[in-house]
Amino acid sequence: MVKTNKSLEAKQKILAGLIRLAYKEGIDSVTYQKVADEVGLSYYLVHYYFAKGTNTLLDEGIAYVGKRAQEYISNYISNVAKESNVVMIHQYILGTLNWGRDFPDESSFWAYYYHLCSRRSDMAKFNQEVTRVAQKRVERLIREDIGSEHFPFQNNIPELAEDLHTYIVGATIKYLTNRNDQQFDHVVKQSWRFAEKLFTLHARKFV
Amino acid sequence: MVKTNKSLEAKQKILAGLIRLAYKEGIDSVTYQKVADEVGLSYYLVHYYFAKGTNTLLDEGIAYVGKRAQEYISNYISNVAKESNVVMIHQYILGTLNWGRDFPDESSFWAYYYHLCSRRSDMAKFNQEVTRVAQKRVERLIREDIGSEHFPFQNNIPELAEDLHTYIVGATIKYLTNRNDQQFDHVVKQSWRFAEKLFTLHARKFV
Repeated sequence: MVKTNKSLEAKQKILAGLIRLAYKEGIDSVTYQKVADEVGLSYYLVHYYFAKGTNTLLDEGIAYVGKRAQEYISNYISNVAKESNVVMIHQYILGTLNWGRDFPDESSFWAYYYHLCSRRSDMAKFNQEVTRVAQKRVERLIREDIGSEHFPFQNNIPELAEDLHTYIVGATIKYLTNRNDQQFDHVVKQSWRFAEKLFTLHARKFV
Repeated sequence: MVKTNKSLEAKQKILAGLIRLAYKEGIDSVTYQKVADEVGLSYYLVHYYFAKGTNTLLDEGIAYVGKRAQEYISNYISNVAKESNVVMIHQYILGTLNWGRDFPDESSFWAYYYHLCSRRSDMAKFNQEVTRVAQKRVERLIREDIGSEHFPFQNNIPELAEDLHTYIVGATIKYLTNRNDQQFDHVVKQSWRFAEKLFTLHARKFV
């Protein structure tokens, strides 16, 4: 039991090191040896954990970052939900961009993940499920906002959620590719305003 | 003169080889030697062209892909503009996604470029200009569509263009990370419908 925790700890340490290294020096320069040096473990230990089976170090890095992003955004939303009168969709946008800002190395690795999906069908398949889950979450937050009377009843919530999700992917890329406070504020403002517009357009009364 | 053309040809051959190799085997496994093997030139020649100055092989690859994408989309738009009654914004979306479909290696490299921008401020700065030019193009196409009476007069065309551009970045990522015919059709349809919605919303009469 203790052994399992210890090995999990070492694995996470190695993955965090990989992601820091990829951010500092570039993914094209990552080697087992450099990761080992980064985290102060031996080459053999890094190799031991990540050379077995089909999962490579990079693939495990993707899964690790994805899981952490998911947890961060979920926690963020649960926390703000304690406040009254917040618009959940706004908070989802803010949580996503906060994650990008507060974890530059992890969010940069996530941008690399998009590249991986664009050339590897196994990764693309994994991403379909990630996208499906994310869109479903957006849908639920929209329903919650309607229930709180932040927005009127909406037509075709799945379509609305898909459009919002597509836009948020673009907006996140826009911030990640130009990381500074001014751009952060601009992208949040642009996305909030955009969400409001979309809700106005989809409102049932317009049909 | 002949020499210059020849060296330009060799350079482009090397860059195209780099991009094919990165698509097949992954950017993390690219070396000068592998690129040389891919294009049937010597290691020394590849090194000669791309080890000088601050521009690395990858950076030149980005510039090459960006230029080719820009040319492809411009040509695509000029060509369809010969037909009467086309909606230019629809054609811009289609041209962008066609580029992604017809050049899987180049568009995959472009996704990698987003990762680079997320960790390198020089690349991010370059991307600001790329984004500015792209948004300006969207603006002009919107004005053209209004002039052709495809859409009513619009409020705040720069804001509209920025929203559309953000969405198209997200939509392109969505296709690139799930390359198949069904997804292509879905993303085109979703984006066209989205553009129509946005034009309805921004139409001056609604204000």
